[in-house]
Amino acid sequence: MNRREFNSTMLAAAGGYVIAPRQTSSTLKVNGGRIVEHLNALSQFGKNPQGGVSRVAYSQADLLGREYVMGLMRAAGLEVKVDAAGNLVGRRAGSEPALKALVMGSHIDSVPEGGNFDGDVGSMGAIEVAQTLAENKLTTRHPLEVIIFANEEGGTIGSHSISGEFNEKYFSLVTNSGKTIRDGIKFIGGDPDKLAGIRRKPGDIHAYLELHIEQGGILDQEKINIGVVEGIVGITQWEVKIEGFANHAGTTPMNQRRDAMLAAAKFIQAVNQIVTSVPGRQVGTVGKLQAWPGAYNVIPGKVILGLELRDLDAAKVTMLYQKIRDEAAAIGKASGTTFDFTETNTIVPAPTNERIRNLIDETAKRLRLTTKWMPSGAGHDAQEIARLGPVGMIFVPSVGGISHSPREFSRPEDIANGANVLLHTLLKLDQTTLQ
Amino acid sequence: MNRREFNSTMLAAAGGYVIAPRQTSSTLKVNGGRIVEHLNALSQFGKNPQGGVSRVAYSQADLLGREYVMGLMRAAGLEVKVDAAGNLVGRRAGSEPALKALVMGSHIDSVPEGGNFDGDVGSMGAIEVAQTLAENKLTTRHPLEVIIFANEEGGTIGSHSISGEFNEKYFSLVTNSGKTIRDGIKFIGGDPDKLAGIRRKPGDIHAYLELHIEQGGILDQEKINIGVVEGIVGITQWEVKIEGFANHAGTTPMNQRRDAMLAAAKFIQAVNQIVTSVPGRQVGTVGKLQAWPGAYNVIPGKVILGLELRDLDAAKVTMLYQKIRDEAAAIGKASGTTFDFTETNTIVPAPTNERIRNLIDETAKRLRLTTKWMPSGAGHDAQEIARLGPVGMIFVPSVGGISHSPREFSRPEDIANGANVLLHTLLKLDQTTLQ
Repeated sequence: MNRREFNSTMLAAAGGYVIAPRQTSSTLKVNGGRIVEHLNALSQFGKNPQGGVSRVAYSQADLLGREYVMGLMRAAGLEVKVDAAGNLVGRRAGSEPALKALVMGSHIDSVPEGGNFDGDVGSMGAIEVAQTLAENKLTTRHPLEVIIFANEEGGTIGSHSISGEFNEKYFSLVTNSGKTIRDGIKFIGGDPDKLAGIRRKPGDIHAYLELHIEQGGILDQEKINIGVVEGIVGITQWEVKIEGFANHAGTTPMNQRRDAMLAAAKFIQAVNQIVTSVPGRQVGTVGKLQAWPGAYNVIPGKVILGLELRDLDAAKVTMLYQKIRDEAAAIGKASGTTFDFTETNTIVPAPTNERIRNLIDETAKRLRLTTKWMPSGAGHDAQEIARLGPVGMIFVPSVGGISHSPREFSRPEDIANGANVLLHTLLKLDQTTLQ
Repeated sequence: MNRREFNSTMLAAAGGYVIAPRQTSSTLKVNGGRIVEHLNALSQFGKNPQGGVSRVAYSQADLLGREYVMGLMRAAGLEVKVDAAGNLVGRRAGSEPALKALVMGSHIDSVPEGGNFDGDVGSMGAIEVAQTLAENKLTTRHPLEVIIFANEEGGTIGSHSISGEFNEKYFSLVTNSGKTIRDGIKFIGGDPDKLAGIRRKPGDIHAYLELHIEQGGILDQEKINIGVVEGIVGITQWEVKIEGFANHAGTTPMNQRRDAMLAAAKFIQAVNQIVTSVPGRQVGTVGKLQAWPGAYNVIPGKVILGLELRDLDAAKVTMLYQKIRDEAAAIGKASGTTFDFTETNTIVPAPTNERIRNLIDETAKRLRLTTKWMPSGAGHDAQEIARLGPVGMIFVPSVGGISHSPREFSRPEDIANGANVLLHTLLKLDQTTLQ
């Protein structure tokens, strides 16, 4: 960022600033109605006739949505650049230029046939916080950044690029937009050959905050205002191949079958029993299954299914997996089938910063909001940014726990609460030395 | 058939006949080595490099295999015609022209990547019986027919045409050959517009006998020579749709899920438990399953699976189905899912003729062979021909119970035993008044 440009832009926009005070009054509030207006306007880009949105990364809808959001960022007093990965990076100088950046962010790309809250709430919330500061002529000590990360839903590609974890072998992957990642990055104004230039190092940021919808039903069910995120769970996925013997479904007596489907059914039940047999918030899912040959009248000789385990504690996932392996071996032995496990994907757990968790909790309570500490079961850009410095995440309720669906919904008052917690936690963090 | 043609052909081939005696000596034997030679030769048509055969109906391999078989039929003293459905109908006059035909048959088409015994054993066995009679100058009282039915594996199309059950709406179905049934029938020399002309009426035949491999493992496991088939089981198939709610596999706690896959797993186990909970030889299979959306990280909101039940007794199938429905309702209630059953296919059970069953059993024992009475779990052309008159089926062991596979195998001695039982049962039937 060119400092001279910044100052002239900012001064023109807001006419001079005062430094944010050490004790910010909790009467300072975001404009909740404006967040909803912005969410509504954003929902037009990629809107589906049957409801919800398909604003997949690198699509025309994504490109137009980004243009709209850049306008909002500029109106909020941020100097905006599109970086080499296509991230929208909005920046406003702090009063102490030597300090590291205080960063807020999220994303505006969606899954196919998704909703208007996942990512959008955090993006509009962060911009609203910047705008509230600008309107109140408050300047943070640290340089302030709002980053709208590119292609979160397709593998947190934008935040991977900033953390330095992006691997060029993924350039050729075809995304939901139909474009490869390489072409998609170009399409939204990035430069795939210059990703090295946007990489940041551990210690480069002061802190990162992300507001997000819970995407689960706990806050909604327990009528709690704010989720204090303890960390983002680790995810391990396995392809499980079960082999029996395909045979005629009419002529093979029940006691002479080596039925891979029946073994799979027992396995799916065992996964559920094992995952729920110990206390905690771990989850285990079998989300996909294919049987061969796959006909009414043939006993399946082969099944391939997908197993996924998630928890904040990697050791717990390992423990559950071992129990599942043991049970699979027992099922295999009893049914004349074999089980073969191939780990296809692993994301290590990313704990949030303890000081930031406490700050979020205290801030929410000061705003007379109820809180619950919880893991994030979903992956987020915060996970990648956690490699660079301390991160915190703030959840607001998802009605009915529904996400990645046109039926995804969060109430305006919950969104405003979350943005206010984001605002005041940010101001506190600005005055706090972490680590 | 033109009677003059027949006589001249037959007399030329075998030089005159004697009537089969009322008491046929059990020393009369088929040439087992010749059956194996014929099976080996037939296996070349549609042979797969990796073993087994893909001689699907209406393919070039089928066409060439049929040419070969017509040669064998002629050499066995049969007058051969290709009927309007493409069935190969070989006929030899009996000594009492007013009597109804005594029919043997099977098929030579295979499933894709099938074996060399399903259908082929019965086809080569029936031709061998005809040849043995011709070589021994024996003439049956009843006109003798050997029918090699067209397209058995694709829905017993040839035998459906003879029984009058073929529905013209199936003409447009695309078969494994890539051709529609209409085009396939033309390809093998039939005439789809003249199917009505080959239809036979109930009472048109004296009896029908079919030799076949068991396709299951019971005879092999119990070391029994001959299966006396009590009937061909009824088959009912249902498409079962299970609906839950698709949600995020990371953010949805285990106790808030409406997981259609987990409900399907419980259902598959319940089907197995219910089918095996009562004595008998009924079978139940879930052979296909698809889950939506079908990703590692989404709890499936919908599963569609295929359920099939088979038994000789339709009432038992109804009873098992009702138990399965009740259990599905209970699983649905407990898991927040719904089950919806659509019957997609029903074939009613086809019992064999009691007198013929006894004749087969007595004949086998006279040949010092062990027998076991059993249902046929697989469908056969005999099922259609049972609409026209009394039928009987003779099973020989399938090694390891494997069928519809390149590993399908029946031992030469077992095949010869089966053909000898076919021969002597046929001669007995020729002297027997049924009904």
